[in-house]
Amino acid sequence: MGERTGPIGVFDSGVGGLTVVAEIRRRFPAEDVVYFGDTARVPYGNKSPETVSRYSQEIARFLLSKEIRILVVACNTSSAVALDRLDGLVPVPVLGMIAPGARAAVEASRNKRIGLIGTRATVSSGAYARAVQALDPVASIMAQACPLFGPLVEEGWAEDPVTREVARRYLEPLLSAGVDTLILGCTHYPVLIPVLREVTGPGVTLISSATSAVDQLADLLASPAGTGSTLRGRLACYVTDAGTHFRAIGERILGEPVETLLAVAEERLVSP
Amino acid sequence: MGERTGPIGVFDSGVGGLTVVAEIRRRFPAEDVVYFGDTARVPYGNKSPETVSRYSQEIARFLLSKEIRILVVACNTSSAVALDRLDGLVPVPVLGMIAPGARAAVEASRNKRIGLIGTRATVSSGAYARAVQALDPVASIMAQACPLFGPLVEEGWAEDPVTREVARRYLEPLLSAGVDTLILGCTHYPVLIPVLREVTGPGVTLISSATSAVDQLADLLASPAGTGSTLRGRLACYVTDAGTHFRAIGERILGEPVETLLAVAEERLVSP
Repeated sequence: MGERTGPIGVFDSGVGGLTVVAEIRRRFPAEDVVYFGDTARVPYGNKSPETVSRYSQEIARFLLSKEIRILVVACNTSSAVALDRLDGLVPVPVLGMIAPGARAAVEASRNKRIGLIGTRATVSSGAYARAVQALDPVASIMAQACPLFGPLVEEGWAEDPVTREVARRYLEPLLSAGVDTLILGCTHYPVLIPVLREVTGPGVTLISSATSAVDQLADLLASPAGTGSTLRGRLACYVTDAGTHFRAIGERILGEPVETLLAVAEERLVSP
Repeated sequence: MGERTGPIGVFDSGVGGLTVVAEIRRRFPAEDVVYFGDTARVPYGNKSPETVSRYSQEIARFLLSKEIRILVVACNTSSAVALDRLDGLVPVPVLGMIAPGARAAVEASRNKRIGLIGTRATVSSGAYARAVQALDPVASIMAQACPLFGPLVEEGWAEDPVTREVARRYLEPLLSAGVDTLILGCTHYPVLIPVLREVTGPGVTLISSATSAVDQLADLLASPAGTGSTLRGRLACYVTDAGTHFRAIGERILGEPVETLLAVAEERLVSP
């Protein structure tokens, strides 16, 4: 019973994963969602795989204590370096960002040259490249780490000329290589779509891994193991650092008030 | 005896505090230094005072276990929000960044209009403003949070046109207000001096809080409590995330190899 009625657990290093929650709530408004943002230890994108993996496991254990029935890893960096270990650790279905994004990109690309933008950790993990190659051995990925994009979004400069110049700089090698599809491999990046679209022009298809992942979540929810019956569309958010920043940015992303926002001390996160 | 012969303990949220270590080693080459960079939880600048204070206390306890005889808080954010609590917690002299930077700025300023750039947390703490006012009630501080500067430095774009444009944007209100002195209230910022100098022009004195703090350290070392007698100029670095990034950037800042680099699991940091 527990597995059939619990909420969907979603986590990210910070506030960015709420782009995935927004998509879940738009498409499955009756689902209960428990979100965990590791705002005290954000960002994950420049940390080592070992550290990201350890944090991810701590958070997964915490969310399991909330009786989630599905775990969505709404952080590309965690998905890239920790998904296998999470899959072995938790007794509910685990959904990451990499495979859905890779699948959507392979389907969209005509010339099989796919660009990827993400954090340093996501890019150097090679996870997207492996996922793409598994789906289509002819397809190739060209990747660019964009560590300034997250801070620019958090500064509220998503449509600023400075951000356009930074985007031009980061994307130039990918565009020169002729990619026709670009994976936005970080949950922060969808808010940059206007600027990215301006830099790439209309010839490049932008793939949001968040949207692709929620497509795959739909399949899980339609399966017998995924059915929730006593759900009321509640949203609870847990954070490790209780700043006002999370609520302000979060409500902008969600388009609804964050009514339940709770702080979790890191000591309460049990190490693996 | 312990207090007389132990190393100088220095900590920062990441690699930036090595600018302070470099200055210490230049001026006091015989001193042993133990450095702690909280690279797993960097940056501190957008976190709440409670979280920064908790992390700072954990690190202070760790450094005390290395028998340090002086603690240098080479992180402006920690200095701004946690120094009082550290001062009560540790039985050795504690030196922060705020008071030395404020003193140097008040001495340098002719028109008593002082600009401050730092992280969000440092700026909103009001710590520099209080320190300046205590020294000179006529002086006023105008502050600007610059959350993009850290990421730009870490991306290696310290002298890039993008950084110049960002600096222009951040400094414009301070320059319009006629500040004649600018406190670089973050250990990352000294590497931005060429760009900042270009934007401010020669009429503004730039104050590095790192340099000012090491001036004050000199006074401490000259006092009887500060004398070290069996020191050999060793440097040991502890980090919470063992990436290659720390060594690469760190050696550039220090101008010497980081021979002893050790990873500390966060669980070993005892919570207060």
